Amino acid sequence: MNVEFINPFLSAIMNVLTTMAMMEVKPGKPYIKKNEVACGDVTGIIGMASDQAKGTLAVTFTEKVILEITKRMLGEDVTTIDETVCDMVGEITNMVTGGAKSQLSEKGYYFDMAIPSVIAGKDHIIRHKSKAPIVIVPFDTSAGDFFIEICFEE
Amino acid sequence: MNVEFINPFLSAIMNVLTTMAMMEVKPGKPYIKKNEVACGDVTGIIGMASDQAKGTLAVTFTEKVILEITKRMLGEDVTTIDETVCDMVGEITNMVTGGAKSQLSEKGYYFDMAIPSVIAGKDHIIRHKSKAPIVIVPFDTSAGDFFIEICFEE
Repeated sequence: MNVEFINPFLSAIMNVLTTMAMMEVKPGKPYIKKNEVACGDVTGIIGMASDQAKGTLAVTFTEKVILEITKRMLGEDVTTIDETVCDMVGEITNMVTGGAKSQLSEKGYYFDMAIPSVIAGKDHIIRHKSKAPIVIVPFDTSAGDFFIEICFEE
Repeated sequence: MNVEFINPFLSAIMNVLTTMAMMEVKPGKPYIKKNEVACGDVTGIIGMASDQAKGTLAVTFTEKVILEITKRMLGEDVTTIDETVCDMVGEITNMVTGGAKSQLSEKGYYFDMAIPSVIAGKDHIIRHKSKAPIVIVPFDTSAGDFFIEICFEE
């Protein structure tokens, strides 16, 4: 996978969370997903496709982190992963992909975005069916960690 | 959503399961997803995008059904939703979308496919973030039911 694909997603998610949730977000070192399977409680996932490349972005949160992000973004308490929280995850996924899409187009990579889906379920796991490497970037926040997974085929 | 989008997915999944799993599959009546949330144990999900339309296909199975399908397709027993079963779900998702894509192109609808992802987790739920209606089609098999969800925006 072209490393140029990674940074636009990193800066887009940091931009969304720092400006809209007023949350300090520190990206960790990206790594290639091997056999290990990371678990989360809620995931936003969106496909991207064009003649040039196809890919998937997944953003996975534990309950604790997404409740804090939702609280900060909406200014109201949420206590469980309900429809409001799932909507927020879908919205974050959309904004991050939209931001990355815009940055990628400046580098000459164009793609269309599919419709984001949100999966909720305690400790679900995600596998991407691709021969391309899957890059995971962990993020550290005051409420715990979350991570994004990016998979692109050119 | 244009109803012309639905039938290609129905015929593609029936084609895949009857020819590759030798399994009789009866489609039920399609309905629009409202607030109700269907649960499954493993889901294949793939985005589709073009200038004309964007969408998502999800295929959700209970454990019982996918173990039977995997057993029939591979000719070997599987007892749990492991990597082999997840690969099978990803492969089915890819084949169904590829088949539908080909039929849709004959009707003048072209799109590119993203990379399929597979989500495993007991009783997870899926929400699609779209203003377009989400059509659910249930399927009946000798091992139980499964269903597909199709969401398309033009």
